[in-house]
Amino acid sequence: MATELYDLTVPPFTRGLRALNGLLDKAVAHAEATGVDPETYLSLRIIDDMNPFVKQVQTACDSPKLCLARLSGVAAPVNDDSETTIAELKARIASTLDYLASVPREAIDGQEQKEVVLTFPGGEMKFLGQPYVTGFAIPNFYFHITTAYDLLRGAGVPIGKRDYMGGV
Amino acid sequence: MATELYDLTVPPFTRGLRALNGLLDKAVAHAEATGVDPETYLSLRIIDDMNPFVKQVQTACDSPKLCLARLSGVAAPVNDDSETTIAELKARIASTLDYLASVPREAIDGQEQKEVVLTFPGGEMKFLGQPYVTGFAIPNFYFHITTAYDLLRGAGVPIGKRDYMGGV
Repeated sequence: MATELYDLTVPPFTRGLRALNGLLDKAVAHAEATGVDPETYLSLRIIDDMNPFVKQVQTACDSPKLCLARLSGVAAPVNDDSETTIAELKARIASTLDYLASVPREAIDGQEQKEVVLTFPGGEMKFLGQPYVTGFAIPNFYFHITTAYDLLRGAGVPIGKRDYMGGV
Repeated sequence: MATELYDLTVPPFTRGLRALNGLLDKAVAHAEATGVDPETYLSLRIIDDMNPFVKQVQTACDSPKLCLARLSGVAAPVNDDSETTIAELKARIASTLDYLASVPREAIDGQEQKEVVLTFPGGEMKFLGQPYVTGFAIPNFYFHITTAYDLLRGAGVPIGKRDYMGGV
């Protein structure tokens, strides 16, 4: 009855990335309807010293990608964060979704006690697989999806909570 | 090895609400340091027709409270959303944390297949317990925590990602 690690990760990450893709579609439609260059959305920021929209989308892709790569050992696509258009961000999401779909359940389930080490310029963080997923990867993923949502919402794109929640 | 429903809910919700409480503390400190009335933060919005900061905090409290009440059947505190100060919002968080701590593990574990029905003015949504948690309650919780973060960050409160992630 308890929840396998695959079910904790792949379905919610997939739903969230599809929702993000839908937000980008609505952003493009709004830009076209209002005569705005949609690429201007890429530089939207909550405040000057916070990462822009483009980086929020890139990190929303990297978070589940790296989570599954760390748990499963299945090699993940390498991204150089060079996207400069909404179309390129949508391709980034699509390739991340392809990777998520390629990771087999048997490579994820049972990794609850696997040691996961994250390295940062200032040091490292060590987790076990289960608390890494529930206490780090999941909140980190939704942080970037939500901030991307907030930036588009603040720019007047007509989106609502259902667009964030995706296909609930 | 798989993850029990309690571990999917109570520890991450607790960590997130404690992080939110810490964001409020930093907001008060910043207001005092800059001579701003901290209660002005309650009306911050991403855009005019989106719920203000006070509602983001209230909903960040309701989301885990209602999730645990629906799963466990343990009666939850009733809130009338009357908070008008940061201190009252901190008390709301504290009472929510008390409720989370009061729900016993045995009332949550094993509820993966429980039918959860959410009613809205426009209808209802039916879930089973496990997909309700991973596909609705958790993304909804982090939406409101992150939007509260983004609002304070946008207002210049000196907070960073670690404050959102809480005691990782």
